[in-house]
Amino acid sequence: MNTTTVKAFGTAGATEDLKPMDIERREPEADDVKIEITYCGVCHSDIHTARNEWGGSKYPVVPGHEIIGKVVAVGNNVSDFKVGDYVGVGCMVDSCHECASCERDLEQFCENGATFTYNSPNPHIPGTNTYGGYATAITVDKQFVLRLPENIYKPGAAPLLCAGITTWSPLRHWNVKKGDKVGVVGLGGLGHMGVKFAHALGAHTVMITRSPDKAGDAKDLGADEVLISTDEDEMKKHAGSFDFILNTIPVGHDMNPYLGLLKIDATMCLVGAVEPLKPFHGGNIIMGRKRIAGSLIGGIKETQEMLDFCGEHDILSDIEMINMQNINEAYDRVVASDVKYRFVIDMNSLKN
Amino acid sequence: MNTTTVKAFGTAGATEDLKPMDIERREPEADDVKIEITYCGVCHSDIHTARNEWGGSKYPVVPGHEIIGKVVAVGNNVSDFKVGDYVGVGCMVDSCHECASCERDLEQFCENGATFTYNSPNPHIPGTNTYGGYATAITVDKQFVLRLPENIYKPGAAPLLCAGITTWSPLRHWNVKKGDKVGVVGLGGLGHMGVKFAHALGAHTVMITRSPDKAGDAKDLGADEVLISTDEDEMKKHAGSFDFILNTIPVGHDMNPYLGLLKIDATMCLVGAVEPLKPFHGGNIIMGRKRIAGSLIGGIKETQEMLDFCGEHDILSDIEMINMQNINEAYDRVVASDVKYRFVIDMNSLKN
Repeated sequence: MNTTTVKAFGTAGATEDLKPMDIERREPEADDVKIEITYCGVCHSDIHTARNEWGGSKYPVVPGHEIIGKVVAVGNNVSDFKVGDYVGVGCMVDSCHECASCERDLEQFCENGATFTYNSPNPHIPGTNTYGGYATAITVDKQFVLRLPENIYKPGAAPLLCAGITTWSPLRHWNVKKGDKVGVVGLGGLGHMGVKFAHALGAHTVMITRSPDKAGDAKDLGADEVLISTDEDEMKKHAGSFDFILNTIPVGHDMNPYLGLLKIDATMCLVGAVEPLKPFHGGNIIMGRKRIAGSLIGGIKETQEMLDFCGEHDILSDIEMINMQNINEAYDRVVASDVKYRFVIDMNSLKN
Repeated sequence: MNTTTVKAFGTAGATEDLKPMDIERREPEADDVKIEITYCGVCHSDIHTARNEWGGSKYPVVPGHEIIGKVVAVGNNVSDFKVGDYVGVGCMVDSCHECASCERDLEQFCENGATFTYNSPNPHIPGTNTYGGYATAITVDKQFVLRLPENIYKPGAAPLLCAGITTWSPLRHWNVKKGDKVGVVGLGGLGHMGVKFAHALGAHTVMITRSPDKAGDAKDLGADEVLISTDEDEMKKHAGSFDFILNTIPVGHDMNPYLGLLKIDATMCLVGAVEPLKPFHGGNIIMGRKRIAGSLIGGIKETQEMLDFCGEHDILSDIEMINMQNINEAYDRVVASDVKYRFVIDMNSLKN
């Protein structure tokens, strides 16, 4: 295996800051695309993994799975991408391609275990883990490289690769469409994309938040209405009226008030809280045959569809650009929900 | 409003035993069917209501919503039933017939509030509540009277009106069919019907229980397999393999182990626990896009379909017959799960 050394930013341990480090990337094999990274979004998962908050982190951790870059080399079997193309890479860089999930274009649920963009065992360089997009370059199997729509604003496209597909996939899977009343709970990196997508899909989109001061921003993003979840009278007025609720709250919380908002047979889908939820009342789903579901990113085919939709509808993430050297400060601000709505690293700052 | 006095058994307060009492029933109006009750099943909901364990009980409470009886009079607008017919009455005796739920044959979710068989405001005798089937007679609107299949064993049919439809409805709604692998969690009044129905629908039916001593009974009821939920090795072998799980556990519990058994996109439906569940881990439904749902009894049309299916497939509840006078002892045994699987009251014992 031929490798080259590239500059990266990563952490050697759960309690350490991220700092410059050198990592090895493989030289492209027949099916590979080598990408010079230009932008990388900052996802809360990056922080959870860097700080080992979910357990299982293997150090060094080089986070980053909202990658935009330019193709600089391709393998012999690659015909869909050529040098100079702008492309994206999301949360996965490989899967088995053979199991029932992969055959259904649900590589995120690969039965043999998808290779995630960081902190997965790296099948190409045994004994190491995958390193993510906080780096100047990455080499990825062509089946996990996404085409960017022409002329899309590249920094704003980076968060589509995780925050975008995470919210797009459930909205599409549960068939959100014109005329539906859709709630989006939580206005952060995921929630702001959920509002944009639900609006673009034609739904009557309601931002559901505890914070009245987010109302203006939510409407700017495309919300038709804002429902303050601590206002019991307002919550009662909306009871039983939602066709679908996308719940982006990133931590365990009380779901009961939101369950009361659902119509008969309607679903609330969790995309944020990968931890124990607070107890919910069985009667709240038994009455009305309601459903609580979960959803994890989306498959590669669906990610490409989402990117194409964004190109057609001029949808981008709202971002704040930072230099690689400011990542530790950015992490603290993400944890404090002090970003509208996604940090994106300008990777030129690492190259120079 | 003409009424007649009939013998009943009920309770005057949450901490009192059930005892004989006289109640008023209306004489049939144009759309009514008057039924002499022959058998009535004993549902755990009867106990919850008699003892005000869910709150909201209005005394006196006369429980009973698994009613079998003989038509003794019909109103002028009734043509589907005639004197001498054997019929059933379940958990509901009226609804608005006009809302979106009623129009979809989901009277249990009537937007204007279904009239339940007991402890609902009685629209016919203002100021009183409905009284259930622990009585010698009941008068019910024809639209809430069910036809019994010819020659069905009537005592064993009584529990079909609640335990039967409660398990049948979700199995049908989630389209359980031949070739599916279906789990039934909990082996009580609901669970034993769930096993019978899943088996009769052609599914590979797995009884999931903490009690190895229930394995033999479960197989006698139709289970193809028994999975002991406390056996971690066995639970691992079955991970990700179930198309549907019917969860009949009647109290709050830890759902996490069962969520791990579901396939991608599969549903676990709660029909028993109308109280707070223990916290479940969001990641357990986000991984695999799984769903937790609830279901409440079923509509009248679906209840009739279930009864007809039972007639065709010789499906009945396993019961233990009691006299009305033994109801308080029976309640204690239900609470102790000491019944296989449903008590049915022989209402002759109250008439004599």
